Amino acid sequence: VNFHTIEWKNDSVVMIDQRKLPDQEIYNEYKDYAGVATAIKDMVIRGAPAIGVAAAMGIALGVRQIQNREEFKDQLECICKTIKSTRPTAVNLFWAVDRMKHVYQQHKKSTLEELKELFKEEALKIWQEDIDTNQKIGSFGQDLIGDNATLMTHCNAGALATAGHGTALGVIYSGVQSGKKLKVFVCETRPFLQGARLTAWELTKNNIPVTLITDNMAGYFMRYGAIEAVIVGADRIAANGDVANKIGTYGVAVLANRHKIPFYVAAPTSTIDLQTATGDDIPIEERDVNEVTMIGEKRIAPYGIEVRNPAFDITPAELVTAIITEKGIVKKPFKKNLKQLFSK
Amino acid sequence: VNFHTIEWKNDSVVMIDQRKLPDQEIYNEYKDYAGVATAIKDMVIRGAPAIGVAAAMGIALGVRQIQNREEFKDQLECICKTIKSTRPTAVNLFWAVDRMKHVYQQHKKSTLEELKELFKEEALKIWQEDIDTNQKIGSFGQDLIGDNATLMTHCNAGALATAGHGTALGVIYSGVQSGKKLKVFVCETRPFLQGARLTAWELTKNNIPVTLITDNMAGYFMRYGAIEAVIVGADRIAANGDVANKIGTYGVAVLANRHKIPFYVAAPTSTIDLQTATGDDIPIEERDVNEVTMIGEKRIAPYGIEVRNPAFDITPAELVTAIITEKGIVKKPFKKNLKQLFSK
Repeated sequence: VNFHTIEWKNDSVVMIDQRKLPDQEIYNEYKDYAGVATAIKDMVIRGAPAIGVAAAMGIALGVRQIQNREEFKDQLECICKTIKSTRPTAVNLFWAVDRMKHVYQQHKKSTLEELKELFKEEALKIWQEDIDTNQKIGSFGQDLIGDNATLMTHCNAGALATAGHGTALGVIYSGVQSGKKLKVFVCETRPFLQGARLTAWELTKNNIPVTLITDNMAGYFMRYGAIEAVIVGADRIAANGDVANKIGTYGVAVLANRHKIPFYVAAPTSTIDLQTATGDDIPIEERDVNEVTMIGEKRIAPYGIEVRNPAFDITPAELVTAIITEKGIVKKPFKKNLKQLFSK
Repeated sequence: VNFHTIEWKNDSVVMIDQRKLPDQEIYNEYKDYAGVATAIKDMVIRGAPAIGVAAAMGIALGVRQIQNREEFKDQLECICKTIKSTRPTAVNLFWAVDRMKHVYQQHKKSTLEELKELFKEEALKIWQEDIDTNQKIGSFGQDLIGDNATLMTHCNAGALATAGHGTALGVIYSGVQSGKKLKVFVCETRPFLQGARLTAWELTKNNIPVTLITDNMAGYFMRYGAIEAVIVGADRIAANGDVANKIGTYGVAVLANRHKIPFYVAAPTSTIDLQTATGDDIPIEERDVNEVTMIGEKRIAPYGIEVRNPAFDITPAELVTAIITEKGIVKKPFKKNLKQLFSK
């Protein structure tokens, strides 16, 4: 793909501002961890793998701000706490924080300058791994997709959600790279419009034909046979294969099931949380109701009403055809096969 | 309810401009049939029963413009053609036009002035019948709804979609009038946002508690047991019970079915089209793609993409628990029972 969602440049973190897309392609530069934390919370950057990379880079930035070796442990704890408080659902955030903390546990004898370098190296490693992981997911996943297929996706699990070329969209990019002609129906993904604003933008920028629909049109096009497979990303996958992903994913999965359309989830193993037994144990973030009642400067609903804004939902494992990871494609029974994946 | 969607006043037709809600409550006055036709096409007025009433009143206005008795038949034909060309899916439009034409067939000997008066009377009769029909639908339907129930509705099948207090929302208003405490989850209904703009507005104006959600949250709240029944309107019901209604209705019905939540359709018998065998025979209007890509003045998607905008979808009869009409509640088998309804 022809842009970078997140990069480490001259000891600062550069991110494309996803709130401004598709109108403006603006890159923000962050020099401290607090700025990165706010960027995650405000969705300058979003998408589970990209949040993981941003968290790691944010901690590496934060560590550079530490003046004093004796304060390292306490200050690291404080930095990690701030980063972890940004968004509750995507497990990649917590996974990345744990990996960064592990650097300190393994190098307790190192000097302040050594630690700063080690943290930076680990963040860059996580970034590079995500790029490689995307490639592997794309390579495994594209075997599932026929030539001339029309796929449906929800939200954005593309380059904008990762450091590389994406998870769900990574499969599509890899398919196109291997010579397949693919078309993509993109659900706009209310309320934040990641589909309309981000997925439509990055696919178009990479010359892949897009058809934009509102979320509630998914069933219409499935019913008329337009869709051969659905492919989405994930924010957290429980041990039993239940998938937390952007609100609306569950509805698309139920419709795909009714129409016997394969429903694929593409995600790195860092999204799989064996500590969480089922989807019901995954915390679901509720975001500001203004995301629902306002579109830009325009208010679309009357005052004096209750509004709900859960950002994610749970798709039960039974509705998932396969989970595409960098270690291979996982099929049912998920509980057994996901566990096996980690013992490889 | 405490406003009028459409009225005949001093030989003109007055409609609340539904494109301006909920920001502004503006009433437009139409003095000729062309204005009414444009108002239907541009969705100043919408909702199958309200479209039927507007069509009848539009024809009555048009007939008043005829100068010359000899030209009556030809001009009536021309007026009806214009009115019929506005929107293809809601059958109430064609039903109302046929009823108005029938006035002429029954009074071929009448003078121009007599005909003008007869057409006006018939339009007012259709208007009054719609008000009465709503009351009967409300009365039959509210028996299906328990006290303290939380219902879900999609789009607007309320006072704003009829001359009276609504079909789906009529059931809710009648339930509240009979002393029940009811709460309503309203799906915002992209792209035109009839749920967020219209249903949330009229329920709030009538002191019924509303919770607004985006369309893709319906499954989330059903999964957590928040919804006891779904109730929607219809634009056309085929002879076999398949229901054409606002895009997204099908998805809600599939989700309700999965969660064993009753799915009710409330509609006057003028919405039932025994001439149309199944839902697949109902023409589905595709509207301007700007409804999807623009929200107010704000463009939410990149340029250079394909966009689709079917305004309706088909919910197969098997997913419908019951159809609530002014002649009573119709259950399965719909083909037999709908036919029987018309022989009463």
